[in-house]
Amino acid sequence: MGSLVSNAVETWKELKKIGEDDPRKIVHSFKVGVALTIVSMFYYFRPLYQGMGQAGMWAILTVVVVFEFTVGGTLSKSINRGFATLVAGALGVAAEYVADLCGKNGEPILLGVLVFLLAAVCTFARFLPSVKKKYDYGVMIFILTFTLVAVSGYRIEEILTLAHQRLATILIGGATCIVISVFVCPVWAGQDLHNLVASNIDKLAAFLQGYGEQFLGGESGKAAAAEEEEEKPFLLLQSVLNSKATEENLANFAWWEPCHGRFGFGHPWMMYLKIATLCRECAYLIQTLNASSSSHSTNPTATDIFRQIRELCRKICMESSQVLRELSTSIRTATFRSPATTETYRDELKSLIESSSFQLRDNVPLLVVAFVLIDIKNCVDKAAAAVDELSIKARFKKGEDTEKSKSIFRMFRRGTVKPFNEDAC
Amino acid sequence: MGSLVSNAVETWKELKKIGEDDPRKIVHSFKVGVALTIVSMFYYFRPLYQGMGQAGMWAILTVVVVFEFTVGGTLSKSINRGFATLVAGALGVAAEYVADLCGKNGEPILLGVLVFLLAAVCTFARFLPSVKKKYDYGVMIFILTFTLVAVSGYRIEEILTLAHQRLATILIGGATCIVISVFVCPVWAGQDLHNLVASNIDKLAAFLQGYGEQFLGGESGKAAAAEEEEEKPFLLLQSVLNSKATEENLANFAWWEPCHGRFGFGHPWMMYLKIATLCRECAYLIQTLNASSSSHSTNPTATDIFRQIRELCRKICMESSQVLRELSTSIRTATFRSPATTETYRDELKSLIESSSFQLRDNVPLLVVAFVLIDIKNCVDKAAAAVDELSIKARFKKGEDTEKSKSIFRMFRRGTVKPFNEDAC
Repeated sequence: MGSLVSNAVETWKELKKIGEDDPRKIVHSFKVGVALTIVSMFYYFRPLYQGMGQAGMWAILTVVVVFEFTVGGTLSKSINRGFATLVAGALGVAAEYVADLCGKNGEPILLGVLVFLLAAVCTFARFLPSVKKKYDYGVMIFILTFTLVAVSGYRIEEILTLAHQRLATILIGGATCIVISVFVCPVWAGQDLHNLVASNIDKLAAFLQGYGEQFLGGESGKAAAAEEEEEKPFLLLQSVLNSKATEENLANFAWWEPCHGRFGFGHPWMMYLKIATLCRECAYLIQTLNASSSSHSTNPTATDIFRQIRELCRKICMESSQVLRELSTSIRTATFRSPATTETYRDELKSLIESSSFQLRDNVPLLVVAFVLIDIKNCVDKAAAAVDELSIKARFKKGEDTEKSKSIFRMFRRGTVKPFNEDAC
Repeated sequence: MGSLVSNAVETWKELKKIGEDDPRKIVHSFKVGVALTIVSMFYYFRPLYQGMGQAGMWAILTVVVVFEFTVGGTLSKSINRGFATLVAGALGVAAEYVADLCGKNGEPILLGVLVFLLAAVCTFARFLPSVKKKYDYGVMIFILTFTLVAVSGYRIEEILTLAHQRLATILIGGATCIVISVFVCPVWAGQDLHNLVASNIDKLAAFLQGYGEQFLGGESGKAAAAEEEEEKPFLLLQSVLNSKATEENLANFAWWEPCHGRFGFGHPWMMYLKIATLCRECAYLIQTLNASSSSHSTNPTATDIFRQIRELCRKICMESSQVLRELSTSIRTATFRSPATTETYRDELKSLIESSSFQLRDNVPLLVVAFVLIDIKNCVDKAAAAVDELSIKARFKKGEDTEKSKSIFRMFRRGTVKPFNEDAC
């Protein structure tokens, strides 16, 4: 009994956290409740709507199955369901008609063969990545509707009446979901993807800045950084590494969404996935950095050349962090970024290391950090090129915001702007 | 027209490749076809089974929606569906009974409020990770059935008859799916997870062996390795990095499966996810290795000390690869592994580097490789500890196979055993 209560308390806390982290999830639950109540009351008062009859339950089924968290998800399922029902219904009627011509004995055999073939072929088609991504639900409804219509055993006229009812109720259910989903606090998958990618870039920037201050900076930076918890930056990295599936889902759903806000028709959603992949590559490298730094101490008796190397490492670290912040600002505000001054630290570091001769004791980890940082900078540059490509393809704003973003960039450089935090995504 | 034909040809090729890569997918499609044909013929000849009536379509719906590729997936959906229908049906009857007491005007209001509350609360509960993982489908069916029953407007006796029919048809549909899924060429999610984790470890081992031969080995190794395509090892790594979602799904489904083969009740499926996470960490590190090695040349004029470092790197690389192969053999054959001789290369390499003094030009990348390899070895050791834990928890075999696995290990060391290749997973 005690464990039951403590379980309930745990679950309640968990639910509260989910609601606090993303209040849109609470709103979504209410939206589903409203949609279902509206449609079921339609069904309940069906004597008023004789046209629906028993088929009214399909409206309820449609609402329960189709209403997703994002507008794109709801649209994708509604359109898949409606279209698949229409096509499969027509095919089912045709199958029934042909089977009817085969006589009393031939009919069940032909129908059985047709159902088997269609189910097998369609099930196999669901393994195609392109089908799985966008039309999986539609193919399932296609198999279902075809089978139901083909083996219903009704006469063609009866089927047409039924099909008419069924389609009408599915349309009512689907339309209710779409209207509520789009007009009541809509959750756009596209907007979410946009924010998620920008905030992931920010997380990398925050991590690199923290790393530069804590492990490569002077004493003041170290003291400030030491006050923060140790676990959190690692969790930030993990969330970047684990967001692949979410991003792909959002990009799939965004494809179904109509123009909204600054996202026009044919917005280059795939570019976000490309940028996200580069972010993950960068996060892998940063994780390696993290592993190396545990053994790397800021040795006070370090030679002069090592102090120079460390200082250059810090500069590359801060510079990468700044470029990443530029990129996220560019995405977030949908403006072209104004690149910072030309960077020479990377080449300087490379030539300094290559021309040096020294005892390695105690300092090898710093060299590893230096080389990983050079790799990180290369990766950041690739991400920058991808964001620039996105700005062109997505027709980001130009000019007017250049001054503003420059000043934001300067504030970032001074560290007066706190990193953006969007756990909600 | 031409593009339509070329599209069709492309799709056909893609389907053929899917079938060749995993013939079980073709078998699965036939299984679905058979299940659907059986159930729909039941429905078609319903005059013979008067008990089913109109409700027979629920059997078809159940088959289409519930039949998944793996046994665990099918069981999970069937059990969720059956259980949710039962509980929600009972609650719906209770709601209808209470609402009946409220009189003609109160009834729709109370029912509307109940449907709204239940839909909203259940929809929100679906955001709980623990619910989402195992009971998402059940909660959806719960909302659906409750609403359908509560607002059906029938008298209680009618509902009981309907509920009885509905449950019976769902049982027929679910049972057909389960029987065909379990007894006709079953695809066990647990077995798949087991194979996937073992083959991912093998991929890392193959990559490290190839790397050791190609970049750190002598001239003969280089020549042999150069003959292989360049792209493939990178793709192998990518498939390890991208298998997270698949592994988690398989582990979820495996939880629902009964004892099968060597997998008893309460098999430690979560241990596989732990091992898989360590594999991914290892793969990240290997990816870094790969990035560094592009700039690292086997300089023929290298100093003696660098030749020593390279040789030690090669040894650590081969040793890690061997340990990984031991691990995958241990998992694949479900036997305790017999660890190889004690390893000293790592400490040797560390002290060699720390005690050396030299000009860095041209050789820094090798040092980076050395340190990343040390990290990789640490990660492999962690994976080995996890596999040992799995062997104990999953009661792997002991003794009898020790000699055999030792000899396999020796063959691996000599390179006479080719790496295992299981793209099918």
